[in-house]
Amino acid sequence: MGKDKGPSFNLKTPKGTKDWSGSDALLRDRIFTTISNVFKRHGGTALDTPVFELREILAGKYGEDSKLIYDLQDQGGEICSLRYDLTVPFARWLAMNSDIRNIKRYHIAKVYRRDQPAVSKGRMREFYQCDFDIAGTFDPMVPDAEILRIVSEVFEELGWTGRYTIKLNHRKILDGVFSVCGVPEDKIRPISSAVDKLDKMPWADVRKEMVDDKGLDGEVADRIEKYVMNKGSRELLDTLLKDETLNANATAKAGLEDMALMMDYLEAFGVLDKVSFDMSLARGLDYYTGVIYEVVTEGSAGVQADAPEAQNAKKSGKKSKNSEDDDRSNDPTLGVGSVAAGGRYDNLVGMFLPKAQIPCVGISFGVDRIFSITKARLEREQSTNGLRSSEVDAYVMAFGGKGFNGMLKERMEICQKLWSAGLKAEFNYKLKPKLPQQFKAAEQGAIPFAVILGEEELAAGKCRIKEMGLPEGHAEKEGVEVTLDSLVSELKTRIAKKSEGSVTSLAQQLQGASV
Amino acid sequence: MGKDKGPSFNLKTPKGTKDWSGSDALLRDRIFTTISNVFKRHGGTALDTPVFELREILAGKYGEDSKLIYDLQDQGGEICSLRYDLTVPFARWLAMNSDIRNIKRYHIAKVYRRDQPAVSKGRMREFYQCDFDIAGTFDPMVPDAEILRIVSEVFEELGWTGRYTIKLNHRKILDGVFSVCGVPEDKIRPISSAVDKLDKMPWADVRKEMVDDKGLDGEVADRIEKYVMNKGSRELLDTLLKDETLNANATAKAGLEDMALMMDYLEAFGVLDKVSFDMSLARGLDYYTGVIYEVVTEGSAGVQADAPEAQNAKKSGKKSKNSEDDDRSNDPTLGVGSVAAGGRYDNLVGMFLPKAQIPCVGISFGVDRIFSITKARLEREQSTNGLRSSEVDAYVMAFGGKGFNGMLKERMEICQKLWSAGLKAEFNYKLKPKLPQQFKAAEQGAIPFAVILGEEELAAGKCRIKEMGLPEGHAEKEGVEVTLDSLVSELKTRIAKKSEGSVTSLAQQLQGASV
Repeated sequence: MGKDKGPSFNLKTPKGTKDWSGSDALLRDRIFTTISNVFKRHGGTALDTPVFELREILAGKYGEDSKLIYDLQDQGGEICSLRYDLTVPFARWLAMNSDIRNIKRYHIAKVYRRDQPAVSKGRMREFYQCDFDIAGTFDPMVPDAEILRIVSEVFEELGWTGRYTIKLNHRKILDGVFSVCGVPEDKIRPISSAVDKLDKMPWADVRKEMVDDKGLDGEVADRIEKYVMNKGSRELLDTLLKDETLNANATAKAGLEDMALMMDYLEAFGVLDKVSFDMSLARGLDYYTGVIYEVVTEGSAGVQADAPEAQNAKKSGKKSKNSEDDDRSNDPTLGVGSVAAGGRYDNLVGMFLPKAQIPCVGISFGVDRIFSITKARLEREQSTNGLRSSEVDAYVMAFGGKGFNGMLKERMEICQKLWSAGLKAEFNYKLKPKLPQQFKAAEQGAIPFAVILGEEELAAGKCRIKEMGLPEGHAEKEGVEVTLDSLVSELKTRIAKKSEGSVTSLAQQLQGASV
Repeated sequence: MGKDKGPSFNLKTPKGTKDWSGSDALLRDRIFTTISNVFKRHGGTALDTPVFELREILAGKYGEDSKLIYDLQDQGGEICSLRYDLTVPFARWLAMNSDIRNIKRYHIAKVYRRDQPAVSKGRMREFYQCDFDIAGTFDPMVPDAEILRIVSEVFEELGWTGRYTIKLNHRKILDGVFSVCGVPEDKIRPISSAVDKLDKMPWADVRKEMVDDKGLDGEVADRIEKYVMNKGSRELLDTLLKDETLNANATAKAGLEDMALMMDYLEAFGVLDKVSFDMSLARGLDYYTGVIYEVVTEGSAGVQADAPEAQNAKKSGKKSKNSEDDDRSNDPTLGVGSVAAGGRYDNLVGMFLPKAQIPCVGISFGVDRIFSITKARLEREQSTNGLRSSEVDAYVMAFGGKGFNGMLKERMEICQKLWSAGLKAEFNYKLKPKLPQQFKAAEQGAIPFAVILGEEELAAGKCRIKEMGLPEGHAEKEGVEVTLDSLVSELKTRIAKKSEGSVTSLAQQLQGASV
């Protein structure tokens, strides 16, 4: 099939996947660059792993989500599956490379989940993760605090100043709370998962789930409420440190001591004001062993209004399994409305190689959601001028009178001169293009300059540089004549001058747009 | 499994795949950046397609190589396969997006082939392709010539000046030659594939294959020899244009006229001297319809010596199927020793959508082979100094006497200051690291500067900047004292000064190394 005329099948990408092109691809690429620049600033080194792993590497790592793993067909040889996240391949790589006992690694790549897609909400089966993880045995909370500094730098440089909150909690504090409140050991994970829903359900509903669905004693639930409804900063920590019941629990005490160190370090890193100690944050994945965190845009109306998925999530009190599923982030490891999440996982590498336990702490940025929110803001604030699908500086064109030959080779030679000087240039591929066609192409590509060749000017060793889009009456509206020898330098000067006033980062673009 | 202690399986990546980390990942990334900068200079826009396609999209596109396609398991829903190249997904995308009738697109991504891997030779089952293609109906040979200009710019900027040749031929010339020599219609493709082996077999062996294996008349073979053994430039073209037998064949004549235009345009683009019109170039894939080309490193001893696969290929006269296979490029679409290849394919989009035929011409760079050759050259010429696995500018460290507290928060605050200024900085994650440990970490990371905090200096609002690796006796060997207020600017000045003398591109690095 397929080779015959007329395809007998749907011309489409597989369910839950899409093509990225044009200005969307460019904007996403700028987000990647922004994030990876921050990663490099903190000494991150790149790791790239295969898109598929031996199936047994992934087995037993994702609990009931394992059913969402894509398997490769058995075509003889090894049995493989597409990677489900970037964390397990990182742990597998650490276990394989025994000479590496500590590293800061980053990895920006696609992962695969056979989940029910919701394309309009940005939940896809193929999507990007941007991960930064610090592996190694160090003094408590030092790398953990640097991860949150990285989170803050990323969102500042994306232009989200004042629009995000880093929710922070500690698995040991949470476990200690459940323990002193009287939650039976076997109910700790189910009750933890109920608490995690407090970002989209009122307490009354969560309590109902605990008592009616999960069989918890109502008084225990009420004791839990006193703790998990708290959020704050140092003052909350101070209160908890004075709580004798809680401090009598060794696990809780260890967690609180970690949290005190963490706050000191966050202050030294200048990010304490971006962090909310939120006792209701529980996070889904089982493998976290210490601090956990999640970045949300809630409380910043501007961004929320942009993100349809976040908006929907605000209509809280969802109960049906379906609507709850629909409101989940693309990435099941992210909570509702969250754009990045992570935590400390000290035991994962040991699942591959028990003798070589390597503690790790990391963060994963949900780029597809960050993309949707950023794009919506740029569109709303009509600040999309920086979003061209190509970056061409100059369109080389020609015109002439009757019998005009199109000057194709002359246009080629001028382009060659510009390319050799590192300038980005295009020309029309027709032998004899009409001048309006050439201008139209330059306009459609939002190309800032035209280099115009005329027969008489060229014979005199000259051509014309015209800045596109100048207003009527501007002194250079018709362009300026320059010698061919000075073309490159004249054009470079004008390009540099024009880019002086223009935005160079997403942060500038968004902040400029907000003014 | 997996979750229990002691993994019961091999800790490895799947056959034919590998992890990329450290300086290898960084060098490969620099090659990607070099190539994509050239693509953008020519107005290329990025396209990203899913890693898997509906299986029927790939069906009937790759002939007998289809057996090398990786299939996803049928887990319910659509039947999919991993992409085999980037060309068919591009054609599928063009067929799906009817508003786009012309585009320059580039795509840098992994493709998948269940071939017998030869890891030591760089032939992998998962490998990168870097593709640039121009789609659209234009005047003959104009975009075709720009593709070869792009090829030349890429290798110049990779530092391969004088070490590569672009072999160029035209399917119509070749078909015309076979026709006038008397090759029967049904033998044209097999005879073409025999001719394609002239880069690794002497004529006598190729003739033997034609006559003994493929049943061609010996006299016909001798007539073919008179044509296909020729390589040259304009003078060869001029000879052929005077060849009355050949010009009597309409196909050959059309091909020769294309080639005459092509040479004119290549001259205007300043790349004619890098191109060899090579009548033995045939290329394997069936879908080419016009110009075909392949970039080789042969004739440049320096590069050949670096590439083990190219070296082996030089021991010509291979006959056994196995050794021939072993010497093939990673990418079956590339010939022996070739590092990039492509051509014009006017009918591929029409396989998806007959009513919307869109002619295309493109090039695919074999990055894995380019990586191996570049790395070997850098190592041989000991020019690996630019290849650090991270890009950190400064290591912030502290020392003190008896009772020294480690100054962790002070080191954090200084790092915060540097990060906020966009500088790349690291510090030791221990509370009280020893000074030699800290220097060792900076040395291992080849970090150019140390920022050293001492208790007395800090109390006086000062610290010390020390450039690493200065020779004994240098005035700043022990570092220079600066105020904390001026730290950022003093450090920036020194970083800028140090990078002035250093290489900024692969071309500079390799050219510097060659001196």
